Formats: sequence, structure tokens, C-alpha cells
Amino acid sequence: MSQDRLIEIEADVLTKNDAYAQANRNLLAGLGAFAVNLVSSPGSGKTTLLCKTIDALGAQPLAVIEGDQQTENDADRLRATGAPAIQVNTGKGCHLDGHMVGHALEHLALPRGAMRFIENVGNLVCPAAFELGEDCKVAILSVTEGEDKPLKYPDMFTASRLAILNKTDLAPHCDVDLDLYEANLRRVNPGIEILRLSARTGEGMAAWIGWLRSNLAQKTEVKAAE
Amino acid sequence: MSQDRLIEIEADVLTKNDAYAQANRNLLAGLGAFAVNLVSSPGSGKTTLLCKTIDALGAQPLAVIEGDQQTENDADRLRATGAPAIQVNTGKGCHLDGHMVGHALEHLALPRGAMRFIENVGNLVCPAAFELGEDCKVAILSVTEGEDKPLKYPDMFTASRLAILNKTDLAPHCDVDLDLYEANLRRVNPGIEILRLSARTGEGMAAWIGWLRSNLAQKTEVKAAE
Repeated sequence: MSQDRLIEIEADVLTKNDAYAQANRNLLAGLGAFAVNLVSSPGSGKTTLLCKTIDALGAQPLAVIEGDQQTENDADRLRATGAPAIQVNTGKGCHLDGHMVGHALEHLALPRGAMRFIENVGNLVCPAAFELGEDCKVAILSVTEGEDKPLKYPDMFTASRLAILNKTDLAPHCDVDLDLYEANLRRVNPGIEILRLSARTGEGMAAWIGWLRSNLAQKTEVKAAE
Repeated sequence: MSQDRLIEIEADVLTKNDAYAQANRNLLAGLGAFAVNLVSSPGSGKTTLLCKTIDALGAQPLAVIEGDQQTENDADRLRATGAPAIQVNTGKGCHLDGHMVGHALEHLALPRGAMRFIENVGNLVCPAAFELGEDCKVAILSVTEGEDKPLKYPDMFTASRLAILNKTDLAPHCDVDLDLYEANLRRVNPGIEILRLSARTGEGMAAWIGWLRSNLAQKTEVKAAE
């Protein structure tokens, strides 16, 4: 197959995805719901962070869409917090797409102003290209991954509004320079917001919860002003 | 685009890839070269392990093909060991393919019986589907990623001959059960070989070097017997 034909097919797939994503975006906007697409490598600690986030958000209505190649494990962990969670198994697929998320949203009947967390398949490459209708992407990085990751996988960090440097409790045990990590994130995306966090010790959790509440409030205000 | 059409396109891409991979396999077999495809999440420590492996292999002739979305950083690190290394930047691409590796092999003129290390793009999903003509895949897992990863990304571990549980020096600082990690690897691939290793402390390096030398010797013997 020629390179031109491959590019044409890719453009076709992305165009169709964007239409599904736009439909999701319209649905969420109508509900005044703030939706976050959590993206990362496998093993960055997304699910643990999400479980602790749900606990910390207390009575805030929310739901989770959980993407993995296989298993219901993550949805089960999230449901144990009391939150509604839908597992999407992508099989051979390497990312969630707008169509999958649209179907999941149909099954999540929630009050106005509820938050939606979408936990994408652990993959620093492919999910960067697929809009899901989310308000923003939040990239989670484990500090153990190394400071060069933003430079080597720039698309994901260019596409993200916030980067969370997670597992900071492990930083003293690794040869990692967190200031350089942040500098490299800003090299690929000068406007990116950054939080240092340890889901294990709770460091940075208050700032993250504040960030979520503030973004939800802005979304709700925009809807109320319309 | 219909699901049937997408599957047809994917099958077409994989068929073309397999032809390139077979050409690489024939080339490597003719040279009695043992080629390893190193696959993992971003940040599992592949490049550090590879640098220490090259040091430990001493006078063994070898070369490295290095895959990343962006930057020459990893090839630069490897060249600092004295080994020839070719960087392949995949741009938007999420994996190396047989065609890219074929071109890289053309540029690596090496003596008979040399080892080839192919460091794939950090991605636990897509590289599983693309044969490169390698003798085997070796999956590197950082112990910080969590014991559930083999179950959630089974294709990669089904496709790998050996799994290396890397960064074992961090295990005492994480809530990780290495026996469960191994049990989950064997659940998805009962025949998989497993080594525990810390590239940082050197734990397990001797076993890994022994594994490489033994596999190279088997390949060379097969060639000599023909």
C-alpha cells in the first residue's frame, strides 16, 4: 500500500472520529458536564489516582469510562469506590475513540454538572490523535519514566492541558530531576500546567482536586451564562 | 468507514509488513545474527539496560536500531558506548515496522554472528502486531508499572519469549508483589521465560547476558549445521 493511500485512510478515520467526538462534546456541553481524558503510559498510576480522586471529591456526582485492551479489573476497582464505571475493552485496539465513548456516555445517566473521567488505554502515542469530545486531556507521568519522555513523545504533551508528575514518593529512589522533567514538558508545550503528586502519600492531591473543581465551575458558569 | 473495511485495510498493512519482516529474517539468518526486539511501555528502562548490556558484552560485535517518535537522544546514548546505532524516528507512528528495520539493516555492515538489538517505540500495544524479522521479542517491564499489566496488555506478553522485570531496586518502595507479577505473565503466556533485573544495581545482569550469549550460540550453531 502506498504512503499516500495510508495517509488518505488515516485522514478518513480521523475525520469520522472527529464527528463522533463533536457529538459527545455537544452532549456534555448541554449537561454542563466537565470531562477529562486521562492519558499516559501503562503503569503511570492512573487508576489509583482516579480511585483516590473519587474519594476526595466526596459527594460530587461523577462517572468513569474505563478503556483497556482486556479485563474489567479497572472498572471493578473504580466501582468499589461507589462511582458508576463502564469498561470499554478495545481488544487489539490501542486507544479509545469517539464512537466508543459516545456509546458509553449513553449508558451513564447522571445529573447536570456531573464530572466524567475517561481513563484511556495506557499508550503515550495513539490516544493523542483521537479526540473523544472531552474538555481536556490530562497526561499522567510516573516520575520513574524519566525526564526525556516529553521530548520523545511530544504529541501527547502538546495535546494536554495539564501534566501530573505522579509517584513523587519514588523520586528520591530514582536518578530523576523533577525540574528538568518540568522544563522538558514546557519545551514541547509552553502553556502546559503541571502538578507534582503522589497518589500514595497524598502529596499534591489538594491542588489536583482544586484544579478539577475550578474547571468544573468554569464549565458550569459558561453553560449558565448561555 | 465500515468495520469490515477497516479490518481489510489492517490485514493488508500486516501482510505487506510480514513480507518485509521475512526479508529481514532471511538476511539475518544468512549472517548467523541473533536479533532481539526490545518492547515495553515508555520509561521501563530499555535504553539504560541496553547501554549496560553493551558494556557487559565486551568485545561481542553488535549494533542497535533505535525507534522513537522524536529525538536522536537514545541513539546518542548508545553510540557513547561505542556501539553503532541507527535512530529511526517514526513521527506520528506508534511502532517500528519491517520496512523501516530493513532500511536500517542495510546501513549496519557488521561481521557474521553479530547481535542486533532493536529498541522499539515505547508502546505496549501496537508493536505486538508488527513482526520485524527478529528472532524474538523481549518485553521489559518496570516493577513500578504494577502486576496487572500482563493481563491488561496480553498481546505483547503472548508474543514475547522473555520478560524482564526491571528496576527491582524500586520494588521495596512500591506496593508490588513480584511473584504475582510472574504468575500473571505465565497466565497469559505459560511458556514465557522471566528474569528479575535492576540495570541500576546490576542484579540479574549476569543471567541476562548469559541468556543472550546462549541464544546467539544456538543461532550460530543452526547456521553452521546447514
